[in-house]
Amino acid sequence: MKKFINKKENIVEEMLQGLAKTNANLKRVEGFNVLVNKHFDQNKVALISGGGSGHEPAHMGFIGNGMLSGAVAGEVFTSPTPDQVEAAINALDSKAGTLLIIKNYTGDKLNFEIAQQLAQANGKEVETVLVNDDVAVENSTWTIGRRGIAGTVYVHKIAGALAHKGATLQEVKRVAQKVIDNVRSFGVSLNSIYIPTTGKKSFELDEKEIEFGLGIHGEPGIKRETIKSSKEIVQEMIDLILKDYDYNNSEVALMINGLGGTPEMELYIVANDAHNYLASKNIKVYQSNVGNFMTSLEMQGVSISLLKLDNELKELLDEKTEVKSWK
Amino acid sequence: MKKFINKKENIVEEMLQGLAKTNANLKRVEGFNVLVNKHFDQNKVALISGGGSGHEPAHMGFIGNGMLSGAVAGEVFTSPTPDQVEAAINALDSKAGTLLIIKNYTGDKLNFEIAQQLAQANGKEVETVLVNDDVAVENSTWTIGRRGIAGTVYVHKIAGALAHKGATLQEVKRVAQKVIDNVRSFGVSLNSIYIPTTGKKSFELDEKEIEFGLGIHGEPGIKRETIKSSKEIVQEMIDLILKDYDYNNSEVALMINGLGGTPEMELYIVANDAHNYLASKNIKVYQSNVGNFMTSLEMQGVSISLLKLDNELKELLDEKTEVKSWK
Repeated sequence: MKKFINKKENIVEEMLQGLAKTNANLKRVEGFNVLVNKHFDQNKVALISGGGSGHEPAHMGFIGNGMLSGAVAGEVFTSPTPDQVEAAINALDSKAGTLLIIKNYTGDKLNFEIAQQLAQANGKEVETVLVNDDVAVENSTWTIGRRGIAGTVYVHKIAGALAHKGATLQEVKRVAQKVIDNVRSFGVSLNSIYIPTTGKKSFELDEKEIEFGLGIHGEPGIKRETIKSSKEIVQEMIDLILKDYDYNNSEVALMINGLGGTPEMELYIVANDAHNYLASKNIKVYQSNVGNFMTSLEMQGVSISLLKLDNELKELLDEKTEVKSWK
Repeated sequence: MKKFINKKENIVEEMLQGLAKTNANLKRVEGFNVLVNKHFDQNKVALISGGGSGHEPAHMGFIGNGMLSGAVAGEVFTSPTPDQVEAAINALDSKAGTLLIIKNYTGDKLNFEIAQQLAQANGKEVETVLVNDDVAVENSTWTIGRRGIAGTVYVHKIAGALAHKGATLQEVKRVAQKVIDNVRSFGVSLNSIYIPTTGKKSFELDEKEIEFGLGIHGEPGIKRETIKSSKEIVQEMIDLILKDYDYNNSEVALMINGLGGTPEMELYIVANDAHNYLASKNIKVYQSNVGNFMTSLEMQGVSISLLKLDNELKELLDEKTEVKSWK
């Protein structure tokens, strides 16, 4: 394993220090693996997300006016503990209440919900939403029900835009849930990854294999096949999404998400194939988001997300944000 | 070799189609591998860059108000031909003149300068600047003199901001040259890459080796060593930069550039180490830019760039741009 790291046990701490030193919008909550928006307005609803590290820019990179108010980093691929999440709620201390955006993994769900209860016991108003956009598997190694992957970033963007406009907690929760109800994703990968804390590969793939439906922690997917053309892979991914949710004749946002090690050149080839295939299905792409949003360390993979849009979602998607990792 | 591609010979064409379909600011120049800013104001100086493909987001991703007006894509790691560059100049057809920003590689320099002459023969006002920020090697496989790498993106940003304000061609050229005179970079890599057009690796690195000073096309660097800590690698990179240019006691912009396959987590660890080391040298970081700017396909590498700032450069660096790949 070769990585740009110092001590294995300091990876998350040093990453957080690096983030705080290089992004003028971020403030560290002392003693915790928590970063918050330095310019957060306490009269607005606070949006907090987080989870295991190794998925950057998710979630720390999405902190800023118009997206997240704060984020909590667990160890690599490990849920943050409840006290960390509670520290984020307390540091932001919104007068309008807090929404926790949780990706559906057993550990995350448990720990974020305990944090909610702890904060509620201290008189805070805290709501949660659970993102489960991955259509690949119904249950997985780390999940009961579907996993939350790149579609989560649409929840950050759209709920973040509404919160920034000054909406109430119930309104922000409603629109976050609306995104969750209408977003679906599917991912594939060409390689395995080294987990920096163990120095081991998360799984093995042959020289010519591609894995369909694997998770962002290297959890098993639904099948392995010999690598084929981008066009064929994209069609199969979109077909699996359409089997779960009927986007035909609707208008969508399309996210082509790199999993960390995929050349941007290839993301645009995938984007081109996705646009062509969606057009053949009378699915109109209103906006495309191409880049690394929800990664899995150095994974050479890609996920496709589709979000069905109505006028409200379009308007919130179009709102400007100062967050640099949104593109 | 596993990649998300269709036919090898269509890689650049499909990437350009993907870019044009997913970025509302971009317009394709028909019949050429050229994209231009749809909202370009012909009364302003046109800024054009380009080079071989495989370095995305450079250069296509930096097109937009406040950065590039257009960019030209050659085949993978291959200079675009003069007629392609000329097509970009003609498509933008600026009344205030055109500045070509060339990375210093023999093919790029030759072809962009021929394009300049062709356009001048047709009555166009065209100037060039040559970026050579890489302190690693004096000459290389593909270069006479130093190579141009990630520092080029600072030329795009700063000259682009001045051009957008309506400055003259000579003014824009002056500030571009000022950036070039004051920016230095150095890169390292942990792995080799597969060239998609040949299906072959560009070179071989052992399981525990790191290469210092290699180029963005996999050209040889100055030495190979056993991998060490991020802190040690960063100090060695910065020392090599400081040997070439004295940044002591000055204020700088710091770019931590991922080469395409490096997890963002590691870029922030590198950024943290760079900040700490620069502070120990009394070099003040005014702004940090962390992300993938000038890549080399899926290379797990990183380059560090330092740009000495004065008030003029700071102001232009701070100007807002609509370009999403700038962060």
